[in-house]
Amino acid sequence: MENSYVLYHDQIIKSGSIPVDPEDRGYLFGDGIYEVVFVYNKKPFAFQEHFDRFVQSSKKLELSMPYDIATFKNLMDELIHKNNMVNGMVYIQMTRGVAPRNHLYERNMQSVVTGFAKSVALDSILESQSKGIQTYLTEDIRWLRCDIKSLNLLGNVMAKRKAADYDCQEAIQHRDGTVTEGSSSNVFIVKNGTLKTHPATNLILNGITRQIVLKIADRLQIPVEEKSFSVEELLNADEVFITSTTMEVAPVVRLLGTQEQNYQIGPVTLKLQENFKLQIEKNTTALRS
Amino acid sequence: MENSYVLYHDQIIKSGSIPVDPEDRGYLFGDGIYEVVFVYNKKPFAFQEHFDRFVQSSKKLELSMPYDIATFKNLMDELIHKNNMVNGMVYIQMTRGVAPRNHLYERNMQSVVTGFAKSVALDSILESQSKGIQTYLTEDIRWLRCDIKSLNLLGNVMAKRKAADYDCQEAIQHRDGTVTEGSSSNVFIVKNGTLKTHPATNLILNGITRQIVLKIADRLQIPVEEKSFSVEELLNADEVFITSTTMEVAPVVRLLGTQEQNYQIGPVTLKLQENFKLQIEKNTTALRS
Repeated sequence: MENSYVLYHDQIIKSGSIPVDPEDRGYLFGDGIYEVVFVYNKKPFAFQEHFDRFVQSSKKLELSMPYDIATFKNLMDELIHKNNMVNGMVYIQMTRGVAPRNHLYERNMQSVVTGFAKSVALDSILESQSKGIQTYLTEDIRWLRCDIKSLNLLGNVMAKRKAADYDCQEAIQHRDGTVTEGSSSNVFIVKNGTLKTHPATNLILNGITRQIVLKIADRLQIPVEEKSFSVEELLNADEVFITSTTMEVAPVVRLLGTQEQNYQIGPVTLKLQENFKLQIEKNTTALRS
Repeated sequence: MENSYVLYHDQIIKSGSIPVDPEDRGYLFGDGIYEVVFVYNKKPFAFQEHFDRFVQSSKKLELSMPYDIATFKNLMDELIHKNNMVNGMVYIQMTRGVAPRNHLYERNMQSVVTGFAKSVALDSILESQSKGIQTYLTEDIRWLRCDIKSLNLLGNVMAKRKAADYDCQEAIQHRDGTVTEGSSSNVFIVKNGTLKTHPATNLILNGITRQIVLKIADRLQIPVEEKSFSVEELLNADEVFITSTTMEVAPVVRLLGTQEQNYQIGPVTLKLQENFKLQIEKNTTALRS
């Protein structure tokens, strides 16, 4: 752990002292959820939205939610403060709890909350945002509840590894020819000025950055279709970009895999990217590098 | 932990002393595999088959396999011995290892091996085997690599919980109307004397008990079709049974859910159940209760 303080239940403690139990259902079944919040200038961005989704994920899996939003916010602030973090990310995880191994869970177990903070150099993000990224097209092999931000991430992990083997920063997944999302991002295309992205069904994680970008597009009167699109449409798109908490809005300049394509960084992408940054500034008065 | 010794890497140590790291990829991504071996009369049953599958799972996920079969066998024997276990199960898990959180994994990380032993009263199994079990029909929402015995088990866990809410011991899952398997077992039907079960594709876990039952059926000249079958065929089956390491061969007497059906415990099920027990005796000289 690069930083020296971590989150454990409702306390911020020295890292290295979290006693994870081998019978924690997170360790045995991946039975838990998580959120990643970006911190700009010491301030968590879109904390309310992340917390709301955290609550939704916990309800979908019937996990007990031990604390309210104010407690989580205080803990996050303390974590940021004690680690002297200016820009970076906070990771918060909650598992169902500890019990002798059994597929069948009992309701109302005591959840186990852990988390950490990690500084991120904003320069590294800016480079991907200005130059664009390479992506690798691969089959979506994940389960049918991708709307839950759960710890069952092997499908995502395998896609990311495959992408990296082709020098790509991200995988773009498709299910039977329908583009779903990246391995840790949402995917947007632009065609004839219209923005298109997979609707927030059980097949994708409804990213917070995705939601904010859709609101910005609406405000800027950019036509939006929340409709699934095919690999064919991806190949013929005028612009492609991904969104995520850690990457914000990043243009895709190349697609590799069974299909290949090059893309220009287009005006719609740039407009959304710029306006997303403005929104961050407005909400966090972020330092720009 | 009911027993007092557990497995940690290549040592058998006192339970309560395994230091699971919060950055273990098993805890963050469910990035690991496991096996459950049944122990009869102090002897692991079908250990070689379980170990072979463990190796296969590790290769499919590119996990490092730190020990050979002899080392694992010795550790398992020591675990059984130190816990004074006569009948029960041994659980062994292996995660990719510990690293700062990142979807992208590096190859050749140092795996983390853990495990425990748990005594099981054979009577509890015998009751399910003689009376039969109730099952709940539900949609298979899992990923498309169910052939890997991984720790990404939320789909299985949710199915098991749903089944239990209807007083069923097991869920029977179907994908778009094709029966795949139970939440922790394989499913067989018998129609006009022919045994049918889903082929060992990426959609099911190729159970060790399943494999042994198929060999027994072959030896007894029971016609077998390793072919997928529909919910309709399940409803119209003459006999239905499940197989698993902990349940062996258990007849299904009732199906609940969107479809309902009652079944008799039939002659093919009983013959396979009896012969499976004979094979256990032959291989472990098990105590029968």
